[in-house]
Amino acid sequence: MVCRYKCIISYDGTYFVGYQIQPTGRTVQGEIEKVLKNMHKGRPMRVIASGRTDSGVHAIGQVIHFDSNLDIPVEGWKKGLNAQLPGDIFIKSVEVVEGKFHARYDVKMKEYRYRLLNDNSFDVFRRNYAYYYPYELDVESMRQAAKLIVGTHDFTSFCSARSDVEDKVRTVYILEISEDKDELVFRVVGNGFLYNMVRIIVGTLLEVGQGKINVNEINCLLEAKSRIYTGKTAPGHGLYLWKVDYNN
Amino acid sequence: MVCRYKCIISYDGTYFVGYQIQPTGRTVQGEIEKVLKNMHKGRPMRVIASGRTDSGVHAIGQVIHFDSNLDIPVEGWKKGLNAQLPGDIFIKSVEVVEGKFHARYDVKMKEYRYRLLNDNSFDVFRRNYAYYYPYELDVESMRQAAKLIVGTHDFTSFCSARSDVEDKVRTVYILEISEDKDELVFRVVGNGFLYNMVRIIVGTLLEVGQGKINVNEINCLLEAKSRIYTGKTAPGHGLYLWKVDYNN
Repeated sequence: MVCRYKCIISYDGTYFVGYQIQPTGRTVQGEIEKVLKNMHKGRPMRVIASGRTDSGVHAIGQVIHFDSNLDIPVEGWKKGLNAQLPGDIFIKSVEVVEGKFHARYDVKMKEYRYRLLNDNSFDVFRRNYAYYYPYELDVESMRQAAKLIVGTHDFTSFCSARSDVEDKVRTVYILEISEDKDELVFRVVGNGFLYNMVRIIVGTLLEVGQGKINVNEINCLLEAKSRIYTGKTAPGHGLYLWKVDYNN
Repeated sequence: MVCRYKCIISYDGTYFVGYQIQPTGRTVQGEIEKVLKNMHKGRPMRVIASGRTDSGVHAIGQVIHFDSNLDIPVEGWKKGLNAQLPGDIFIKSVEVVEGKFHARYDVKMKEYRYRLLNDNSFDVFRRNYAYYYPYELDVESMRQAAKLIVGTHDFTSFCSARSDVEDKVRTVYILEISEDKDELVFRVVGNGFLYNMVRIIVGTLLEVGQGKINVNEINCLLEAKSRIYTGKTAPGHGLYLWKVDYNN
Protein backbone atom coordinates (compact mmCIF):
# COMPACT_ATOMS: atom_id res chain seq x y z
CA MET A 1 0.00 0.00 0.00
CA VAL A 2 1.34 3.42 -0.93
CA CYS A 3 1.46 5.97 1.89
CA ARG A 4 2.34 9.63 1.82
CA TYR A 5 4.89 10.76 4.38
CA LYS A 6 5.42 14.30 5.65
CA CYS A 7 8.83 15.08 7.19
CA ILE A 8 10.13 18.12 9.03
CA ILE A 9 13.81 18.48 8.19
CA SER A 10 16.73 20.64 9.23
CA TYR A 11 19.86 21.33 7.26
CA ASP A 12 23.01 23.37 7.39
CA GLY A 13 23.01 25.05 3.97
CA THR A 14 26.73 25.83 3.95
CA TYR A 15 27.90 23.04 1.71
CA PHE A 16 24.88 22.85 -0.59
CA VAL A 17 24.32 24.76 -3.80
CA GLY A 18 20.73 25.00 -2.59
CA TYR A 19 17.76 22.83 -1.72
CA GLN A 20 16.70 21.97 -5.25
CA ILE A 21 18.43 19.46 -7.54
CA GLN A 22 20.75 21.15 -10.06
CA PRO A 23 22.69 19.77 -13.02
CA THR A 24 25.85 20.08 -10.91
CA GLY A 25 26.55 20.54 -7.21
CA ARG A 26 25.43 19.00 -3.96
CA THR A 27 21.77 19.64 -3.06
CA VAL A 28 19.54 18.76 -0.11
CA GLN A 29 16.90 17.27 -2.39
CA GLY A 30 19.55 15.24 -4.23
CA GLU A 31 20.93 13.77 -0.99
CA ILE A 32 17.48 12.78 0.29
CA GLU A 33 16.35 11.30 -3.02
CA LYS A 34 19.59 9.29 -3.23
CA VAL A 35 18.92 7.72 0.18
CA LEU A 36 15.26 7.01 -0.67
CA LYS A 37 16.34 5.41 -3.95
CA ASN A 38 18.70 3.11 -2.02
CA MET A 39 15.86 2.15 0.30
CA HIS A 40 13.60 1.39 -2.70
CA LYS A 41 16.00 -0.99 -4.48
CA GLY A 42 17.19 1.59 -6.98
CA ARG A 43 13.78 2.93 -7.98
CA PRO A 44 14.01 6.72 -8.61
CA MET A 45 12.18 8.62 -5.87
CA ARG A 46 10.84 12.15 -5.89
CA VAL A 47 10.60 14.44 -2.86
CA ILE A 48 8.46 17.60 -2.80
CA ALA A 49 9.42 20.49 -0.47
CA SER A 50 7.47 23.53 0.76
CA GLY A 51 9.76 25.55 -1.50
CA ARG A 52 13.38 25.82 -2.45
CA THR A 53 16.10 27.52 -0.45
CA ASP A 54 19.18 29.12 -2.01
CA SER A 55 22.84 28.26 -1.63
CA GLY A 56 24.02 28.79 1.94
CA VAL A 57 20.48 29.20 3.33
CA HIS A 58 19.71 27.00 6.34
CA ALA A 59 16.56 25.25 7.50
CA ILE A 60 15.27 24.56 10.98
CA GLY A 61 11.83 23.40 9.85
CA GLN A 62 11.68 22.74 6.10
CA VAL A 63 8.83 20.39 5.18
CA ILE A 64 8.90 17.70 2.49
CA HIS A 65 6.62 14.89 1.40
CA PHE A 66 7.14 11.68 -0.54
CA ASP A 67 5.20 8.51 -1.35
CA SER A 68 6.35 4.99 -0.60
CA ASN A 69 4.97 1.46 -0.59
CA LEU A 70 7.51 0.26 1.98
CA ASP A 71 5.98 -1.05 5.19
CA ILE A 72 8.07 0.87 7.74
CA PRO A 73 6.75 2.53 10.91
CA VAL A 74 7.39 6.31 11.16
CA GLU A 75 10.13 5.95 13.80
CA GLY A 76 11.83 3.44 11.52
CA TRP A 77 11.71 5.90 8.63
CA LYS A 78 13.29 8.57 10.82
CA LYS A 79 16.10 6.30 12.01
CA GLY A 80 16.68 4.73 8.60
CA LEU A 81 16.86 8.03 6.75
CA ASN A 82 19.07 9.72 9.36
CA ALA A 83 21.44 6.75 9.44
CA GLN A 84 22.11 7.14 5.72
CA LEU A 85 21.90 10.92 5.30
CA PRO A 86 25.02 13.08 5.63
CA GLY A 87 25.59 14.98 8.91
CA ASP A 88 24.33 18.30 7.55
CA ILE A 89 20.78 17.03 6.94
CA PHE A 90 18.59 15.75 9.78
CA ILE A 91 15.04 14.39 9.63
CA LYS A 92 13.35 15.74 12.75
CA SER A 93 10.01 13.99 12.33
CA VAL A 94 8.12 11.70 9.99
CA GLU A 95 4.35 11.27 9.91
CA VAL A 96 1.83 9.58 7.65
CA VAL A 97 -0.51 12.10 6.04
CA GLU A 98 -3.51 11.94 3.75
CA GLY A 99 -2.72 11.28 0.10
CA LYS A 100 -3.98 14.72 -0.87
CA PHE A 101 -1.49 16.56 1.37
CA HIS A 102 0.98 18.56 -0.68
CA ALA A 103 4.09 20.11 0.93
CA ARG A 104 4.16 22.99 -1.52
CA TYR A 105 0.58 23.73 -2.54
CA ASP A 106 -0.94 23.47 0.94
CA VAL A 107 1.40 25.96 2.66
CA LYS A 108 -0.57 28.43 4.76
CA MET A 109 2.24 30.36 6.41
CA LYS A 110 6.01 30.40 6.46
CA GLU A 111 8.40 31.81 9.00
CA TYR A 112 11.95 32.85 8.20
CA ARG A 113 14.58 34.25 10.53
CA TYR A 114 17.68 36.19 9.62
CA ARG A 115 20.68 36.43 11.94
CA LEU A 116 22.96 39.46 11.81
CA LEU A 117 26.16 39.58 13.85
CA ASN A 118 26.13 43.29 14.63
CA ASP A 119 29.33 43.63 16.60
CA ASN A 120 32.88 44.77 15.96
CA SER A 121 34.28 41.37 16.68
CA PHE A 122 34.17 38.71 13.98
CA ASP A 123 33.38 35.17 15.11
CA VAL A 124 34.85 32.24 13.16
CA PHE A 125 32.16 29.94 14.55
CA ARG A 126 29.34 32.01 13.08
CA ARG A 127 30.98 32.85 9.73
CA ASN A 128 28.50 30.59 7.93
CA TYR A 129 25.55 31.13 10.29
CA ALA A 130 25.07 34.88 10.70
CA TYR A 131 25.79 37.86 8.45
CA TYR A 132 28.74 39.77 9.91
CA TYR A 133 27.75 43.43 9.84
CA PRO A 134 30.02 45.53 12.09
CA TYR A 135 28.31 48.88 11.41
CA GLU A 136 26.14 50.99 13.66
CA LEU A 137 22.43 50.66 13.08
CA ASP A 138 19.49 52.77 14.16
CA VAL A 139 17.32 49.82 15.17
CA GLU A 140 14.38 52.04 16.14
CA SER A 141 14.11 53.38 12.58
CA MET A 142 14.41 49.86 11.25
CA ARG A 143 11.49 48.80 13.44
CA GLN A 144 9.37 51.68 12.16
CA ALA A 145 10.19 50.75 8.56
CA ALA A 146 9.39 47.10 9.32
CA LYS A 147 5.87 48.12 10.43
CA LEU A 148 5.26 49.63 7.00
CA ILE A 149 6.27 46.41 5.26
CA VAL A 150 3.80 44.35 7.30
CA GLY A 151 0.52 43.85 5.47
CA THR A 152 -0.73 42.88 2.03
CA HIS A 153 1.28 44.50 -0.74
CA ASP A 154 2.53 43.96 -4.24
CA PHE A 155 6.11 43.00 -3.31
CA THR A 156 7.64 43.47 -6.78
CA SER A 157 10.19 45.87 -5.28
CA PHE A 158 11.25 43.18 -2.81
CA CYS A 159 11.60 40.39 -5.35
CA SER A 160 14.57 39.37 -7.45
CA ALA A 161 14.23 40.73 -10.99
CA ARG A 162 15.00 37.18 -12.15
CA SER A 163 11.67 35.87 -10.80
CA ASP A 164 9.01 34.95 -13.33
CA VAL A 165 6.12 34.67 -10.86
CA GLU A 166 3.19 36.75 -12.10
CA ASP A 167 1.20 37.55 -8.98
CA LYS A 168 3.52 39.37 -6.61
CA VAL A 169 0.95 40.22 -3.96
CA ARG A 170 1.82 38.64 -0.63
CA THR A 171 0.86 39.23 2.99
CA VAL A 172 3.49 39.73 5.66
CA TYR A 173 1.89 39.08 9.08
CA ILE A 174 4.89 39.68 11.31
CA LEU A 175 8.20 41.44 10.75
CA GLU A 176 10.05 42.02 13.98
CA ILE A 177 13.64 42.71 14.95
CA SER A 178 14.94 41.49 18.27
CA GLU A 179 18.31 41.81 19.94
CA ASP A 180 20.02 38.63 21.11
CA LYS A 181 23.39 39.46 22.71
CA ASP A 182 25.59 40.63 19.80
CA GLU A 183 23.05 39.67 17.15
CA LEU A 184 20.01 41.25 15.58
CA VAL A 185 17.43 38.64 14.64
CA PHE A 186 14.81 39.42 12.01
CA ARG A 187 11.66 37.33 12.23
CA VAL A 188 9.34 37.34 9.24
CA VAL A 189 6.04 35.49 8.94
CA GLY A 190 3.93 35.59 5.79
CA ASN A 191 1.52 33.63 3.64
CA GLY A 192 4.20 33.24 1.01
CA PHE A 193 7.48 34.75 -0.11
CA LEU A 194 8.83 35.77 -3.50
CA TYR A 195 12.34 34.92 -4.71
CA ASN A 196 14.89 36.64 -2.42
CA MET A 197 12.08 38.56 -0.68
CA VAL A 198 13.30 38.07 2.89
CA ARG A 199 16.89 38.88 1.96
CA ILE A 200 15.83 42.07 0.13
CA ILE A 201 13.65 43.11 3.08
CA VAL A 202 16.64 42.63 5.41
CA GLY A 203 18.99 44.46 3.00
CA THR A 204 16.54 47.35 2.75
CA LEU A 205 16.07 47.58 6.53
CA LEU A 206 19.87 47.69 6.89
CA GLU A 207 19.93 50.73 4.61
CA VAL A 208 17.24 52.31 6.79
CA GLY A 209 19.37 51.53 9.83
CA GLN A 210 22.33 53.25 8.19
CA GLY A 211 20.29 56.29 7.20
CA LYS A 212 20.60 55.61 3.47
CA ILE A 213 16.86 55.05 3.10
CA ASN A 214 14.38 57.08 5.11
CA VAL A 215 11.51 55.40 6.99
CA ASN A 216 9.01 57.50 5.02
CA GLU A 217 10.37 56.17 1.76
CA ILE A 218 9.21 52.60 2.44
CA ASN A 219 5.72 53.23 1.05
CA CYS A 220 7.21 54.80 -2.09
CA LEU A 221 9.53 51.80 -2.50
CA LEU A 222 6.55 49.47 -2.39
CA GLU A 223 4.53 51.61 -4.81
CA ALA A 224 7.44 51.91 -7.25
CA LYS A 225 7.15 48.17 -8.01
CA SER A 226 10.78 48.17 -9.03
CA ARG A 227 13.74 46.30 -7.61
CA ILE A 228 16.16 49.15 -8.35
CA TYR A 229 15.37 51.34 -5.32
CA THR A 230 15.37 48.72 -2.57
CA GLY A 231 18.48 47.60 -0.67
CA LYS A 232 21.03 44.96 -1.55
CA THR A 233 20.06 41.32 -1.20
CA ALA A 234 21.48 40.28 2.19
CA PRO A 235 23.72 37.18 1.94
CA GLY A 236 22.13 33.73 2.12
CA HIS A 237 24.12 32.39 5.05
CA GLY A 238 22.22 34.52 7.61
CA LEU A 239 18.83 33.13 6.53
CA TYR A 240 16.90 30.26 8.12
CA LEU A 241 13.64 28.71 6.93
CA TRP A 242 12.25 28.38 10.43
CA LYS A 243 8.76 26.90 10.19
CA VAL A 244 6.08 26.00 7.66
CA ASP A 245 2.40 25.89 8.62
CA TYR A 246 -0.29 24.08 6.66
CA ASN A 247 -4.04 24.30 6.26
CA ASN A 248 -5.88 21.94 8.63
CA MET B 1 64.09 46.89 14.54
CA VAL B 2 62.81 43.43 15.34
CA CYS B 3 59.79 43.28 17.63
CA ARG B 4 58.09 40.28 19.20
CA TYR B 5 54.33 40.14 18.77
CA LYS B 6 51.88 38.17 20.89
CA CYS B 7 48.50 37.37 19.34
CA ILE B 8 45.33 35.86 20.75
CA ILE B 9 43.71 33.83 18.02
CA SER B 10 40.50 31.90 17.49
CA TYR B 11 39.90 29.11 15.01
CA ASP B 12 37.27 26.65 13.96
CA GLY B 13 39.21 23.38 13.96
CA THR B 14 36.80 21.52 11.68
CA TYR B 15 38.75 21.78 8.46
CA PHE B 16 42.26 21.56 9.89
CA VAL B 17 44.31 18.42 10.50
CA GLY B 18 45.42 20.23 13.65
CA TYR B 19 47.23 23.35 14.80
CA GLN B 20 50.76 22.20 14.00
CA ILE B 21 52.29 22.02 10.53
CA GLN B 22 52.24 18.50 9.08
CA PRO B 23 53.77 17.01 5.94
CA THR B 24 50.27 16.98 4.42
CA GLY B 25 46.97 18.64 5.29
CA ARG B 26 45.75 22.09 6.15
CA THR B 27 46.99 23.44 9.50
CA VAL B 28 46.42 26.63 11.49
CA GLN B 29 50.14 27.24 11.84
CA GLY B 30 50.64 26.66 8.11
CA GLU B 31 47.96 29.20 7.17
CA ILE B 32 49.35 31.87 9.49
CA GLU B 33 52.96 31.33 8.43
CA LYS B 34 51.93 31.53 4.77
CA VAL B 35 50.32 34.94 5.33
CA LEU B 36 53.33 36.19 7.33
CA LYS B 37 55.67 34.97 4.60
CA ASN B 38 53.66 36.98 2.04
CA MET B 39 53.92 40.05 4.23
CA HIS B 40 57.70 39.58 4.53
CA LYS B 41 58.43 39.36 0.80
CA GLY B 42 58.73 35.59 0.73
CA ARG B 43 60.98 35.20 3.75
CA PRO B 44 60.02 32.02 5.72
CA MET B 45 58.40 32.96 9.03
CA ARG B 46 57.97 30.88 12.17
CA VAL B 47 55.12 31.15 14.64
CA ILE B 48 55.23 29.66 18.15
CA ALA B 49 51.97 28.67 19.89
CA SER B 50 51.14 27.91 23.53
CA GLY B 51 50.78 24.31 22.39
CA ARG B 52 49.29 22.28 19.60
CA THR B 53 45.64 21.33 19.23
CA ASP B 54 44.46 18.17 17.47
CA SER B 55 42.36 17.76 14.36
CA GLY B 56 38.85 19.12 14.88
CA VAL B 57 39.73 20.89 18.14
CA HIS B 58 38.72 24.55 18.28
CA ALA B 59 40.29 27.61 19.88
CA ILE B 60 38.70 30.65 21.45
CA GLY B 61 41.92 31.99 22.95
CA GLN B 62 45.00 30.23 21.54
CA VAL B 63 48.16 32.36 21.93
CA ILE B 64 51.01 32.63 19.45
CA HIS B 65 54.12 34.77 19.11
CA PHE B 66 56.34 35.73 16.19
CA ASP B 67 59.15 38.19 15.46
CA SER B 68 59.14 40.78 12.71
CA ASN B 69 61.14 43.77 11.56
CA LEU B 70 58.16 45.32 9.75
CA ASP B 71 57.13 48.73 11.05
CA ILE B 72 53.37 48.16 11.43
CA PRO B 73 51.22 49.35 14.37
CA VAL B 74 49.39 46.58 16.25
CA GLU B 75 45.96 47.48 14.79
CA GLY B 76 47.54 47.31 11.34
CA TRP B 77 48.88 43.84 12.07
CA LYS B 78 45.44 42.71 13.18
CA LYS B 79 43.71 44.09 10.08
CA GLY B 80 46.42 42.94 7.69
CA LEU B 81 46.56 39.40 9.00
CA ASN B 82 42.78 39.00 9.18
CA ALA B 83 42.34 40.37 5.66
CA GLN B 84 44.58 37.60 4.30
CA LEU B 85 43.73 34.72 6.61
CA PRO B 86 40.93 32.28 5.72
CA GLY B 87 37.53 32.72 7.43
CA ASP B 88 38.11 29.94 9.95
CA ILE B 89 41.06 31.70 11.62
CA PHE B 90 40.69 35.09 13.31
CA ILE B 91 43.32 37.21 15.05
CA LYS B 92 41.52 38.71 18.05
CA SER B 93 44.37 40.87 19.33
CA VAL B 94 47.99 41.74 18.63
CA GLU B 95 50.38 43.31 21.12
CA VAL B 96 54.09 44.03 21.27
CA VAL B 97 55.78 42.05 24.04
CA GLU B 98 59.27 41.82 25.48
CA GLY B 99 61.74 39.81 23.42
CA LYS B 100 62.00 37.20 26.13
CA PHE B 101 58.28 36.38 26.09
CA HIS B 102 57.66 32.84 24.87
CA ALA B 103 54.14 31.64 23.99
CA ARG B 104 54.93 28.07 24.96
CA TYR B 105 57.50 28.15 27.75
CA ASP B 106 55.90 30.97 29.74
CA VAL B 107 52.42 29.41 30.04
CA LYS B 108 51.17 29.59 33.60
CA MET B 109 47.66 28.24 33.19
CA LYS B 110 45.41 26.93 30.46
CA GLU B 111 41.67 26.62 30.31
CA TYR B 112 39.84 24.16 28.10
CA ARG B 113 36.12 23.67 27.70
CA TYR B 114 34.33 20.65 26.34
CA ARG B 115 30.79 20.85 24.94
CA LEU B 116 28.52 17.81 25.06
CA LEU B 117 25.11 17.86 23.39
CA ASN B 118 23.27 15.67 25.90
CA ASP B 119 19.85 15.51 24.33
CA ASN B 120 17.85 13.08 22.22
CA SER B 121 17.68 15.48 19.32
CA PHE B 122 20.65 15.79 17.00
CA ASP B 123 21.48 19.29 15.77
CA VAL B 124 23.08 19.70 12.33
CA PHE B 125 24.42 23.13 13.33
CA ARG B 126 26.42 21.71 16.22
CA ARG B 127 27.65 18.52 14.53
CA ASN B 128 31.21 19.90 14.45
CA TYR B 129 30.99 21.97 17.65
CA ALA B 130 29.69 19.70 20.40
CA TYR B 131 29.90 15.95 21.00
CA TYR B 132 26.46 14.44 20.44
CA TYR B 133 25.83 12.10 23.36
CA PRO B 134 22.13 11.19 23.64
CA TYR B 135 22.47 8.96 26.72
CA GLU B 136 21.35 9.53 30.27
CA LEU B 137 24.05 10.72 32.63
CA ASP B 138 24.23 10.88 36.39
CA VAL B 139 25.75 14.35 36.51
CA GLU B 140 25.99 14.36 40.31
CA SER B 141 28.32 11.34 40.28
CA MET B 142 30.35 12.95 37.51
CA ARG B 143 30.79 16.06 39.68
CA GLN B 144 31.96 13.95 42.61
CA ALA B 145 34.47 12.17 40.37
CA ALA B 146 35.62 15.52 38.97
CA LYS B 147 36.49 16.68 42.50
CA LEU B 148 38.87 13.74 42.85
CA ILE B 149 40.68 14.63 39.64
CA VAL B 150 41.29 18.22 40.81
CA GLY B 151 44.74 18.60 42.39
CA THR B 152 48.33 17.66 41.69
CA HIS B 153 48.66 14.11 40.37
CA ASP B 154 50.69 11.95 38.07
CA PHE B 155 48.25 11.96 35.14
CA THR B 156 49.77 8.98 33.27
CA SER B 157 46.34 7.28 33.28
CA PHE B 158 44.85 10.35 31.61
CA CYS B 159 47.48 10.68 28.90
CA SER B 160 47.65 9.12 25.46
CA ALA B 161 49.98 6.11 25.50
CA ARG B 162 51.63 7.69 22.44
CA SER B 163 53.01 10.60 24.50
CA ASP B 164 56.76 10.65 25.14
CA VAL B 165 56.71 13.35 27.84
CA GLU B 166 58.61 12.11 30.90
CA ASP B 167 57.17 14.13 33.76
CA LYS B 168 53.45 13.46 33.86
CA VAL B 169 52.69 15.35 37.04
CA ARG B 170 50.27 18.19 36.44
CA THR B 171 47.96 20.30 38.58
CA VAL B 172 44.27 20.65 37.73
CA TYR B 173 42.91 23.71 39.53
CA ILE B 174 39.31 23.59 38.36
CA LEU B 175 37.19 20.84 36.82
CA GLU B 176 33.53 21.75 36.78
CA ILE B 177 30.51 20.60 34.85
CA SER B 178 27.71 23.03 34.13
CA GLU B 179 24.41 22.64 32.35
CA ASP B 180 23.64 25.03 29.51
CA LYS B 181 20.22 24.24 28.03
CA ASP B 182 20.67 20.89 26.22
CA GLU B 183 24.44 20.85 26.73
CA LEU B 184 26.84 19.82 29.45
CA VAL B 185 29.92 22.01 29.49
CA PHE B 186 33.12 20.77 31.12
CA ARG B 187 35.51 23.50 32.22
CA VAL B 188 39.08 22.47 33.06
CA VAL B 189 41.83 24.78 34.27
CA GLY B 190 45.34 23.54 34.95
CA ASN B 191 49.00 24.46 34.88
CA GLY B 192 49.53 22.22 31.88
CA PHE B 193 47.93 19.33 30.07
CA LEU B 194 49.29 16.09 28.69
CA TYR B 195 48.46 14.75 25.24
CA ASN B 196 44.68 14.01 25.07
CA MET B 197 44.37 14.65 28.82
CA VAL B 198 41.19 16.75 28.68
CA ARG B 199 39.52 14.37 26.25
CA ILE B 200 40.39 11.33 28.42
CA ILE B 201 39.13 13.13 31.54
CA VAL B 202 35.82 13.85 29.73
CA GLY B 203 35.62 10.27 28.41
CA THR B 204 36.24 8.89 31.90
CA LEU B 205 33.64 11.18 33.49
CA LEU B 206 31.12 10.00 30.88
CA GLU B 207 31.72 6.41 31.99
CA VAL B 208 31.15 7.53 35.58
CA GLY B 209 27.92 9.21 34.43
CA GLN B 210 26.83 5.96 32.82
CA GLY B 211 27.69 3.87 35.88
CA LYS B 212 30.51 2.01 34.13
CA ILE B 213 33.14 3.48 36.43
CA ASN B 214 32.40 4.09 40.11
CA VAL B 215 33.26 7.41 41.75
CA ASN B 216 35.44 5.58 44.28
CA GLU B 217 37.53 4.10 41.51
CA ILE B 218 38.94 7.48 40.39
CA ASN B 219 41.76 7.40 42.94
CA CYS B 220 42.68 3.85 41.86
CA LEU B 221 42.65 4.94 38.21
CA LEU B 222 45.11 7.73 39.03
CA GLU B 223 47.33 5.44 41.08
CA ALA B 224 47.34 2.72 38.40
CA LYS B 225 49.34 5.05 36.12
CA SER B 226 48.00 3.17 33.16
CA ARG B 227 45.88 4.34 30.25
CA ILE B 228 44.04 1.01 29.98
CA TYR B 229 41.50 1.56 32.79
CA THR B 230 40.38 5.09 32.02
CA GLY B 231 37.54 5.97 29.61
CA LYS B 232 37.60 6.46 25.86
CA THR B 233 39.18 9.61 24.47
CA ALA B 234 36.20 11.91 23.79
CA PRO B 235 36.16 13.21 20.18
CA GLY B 236 38.12 16.35 19.33
CA HIS B 237 35.26 18.40 17.92
CA GLY B 238 33.74 19.08 21.37
CA LEU B 239 36.98 20.58 22.69
CA TYR B 240 37.92 24.27 22.87
CA LEU B 241 41.22 25.79 23.96
CA TRP B 242 39.54 28.62 25.83
CA LYS B 243 42.27 30.73 27.43
CA VAL B 244 46.00 30.78 28.11
CA ASP B 245 47.47 32.71 31.03
CA TYR B 246 51.11 33.75 31.33
CA ASN B 247 53.50 34.65 34.10
CA ASN B 248 53.58 38.41 34.71
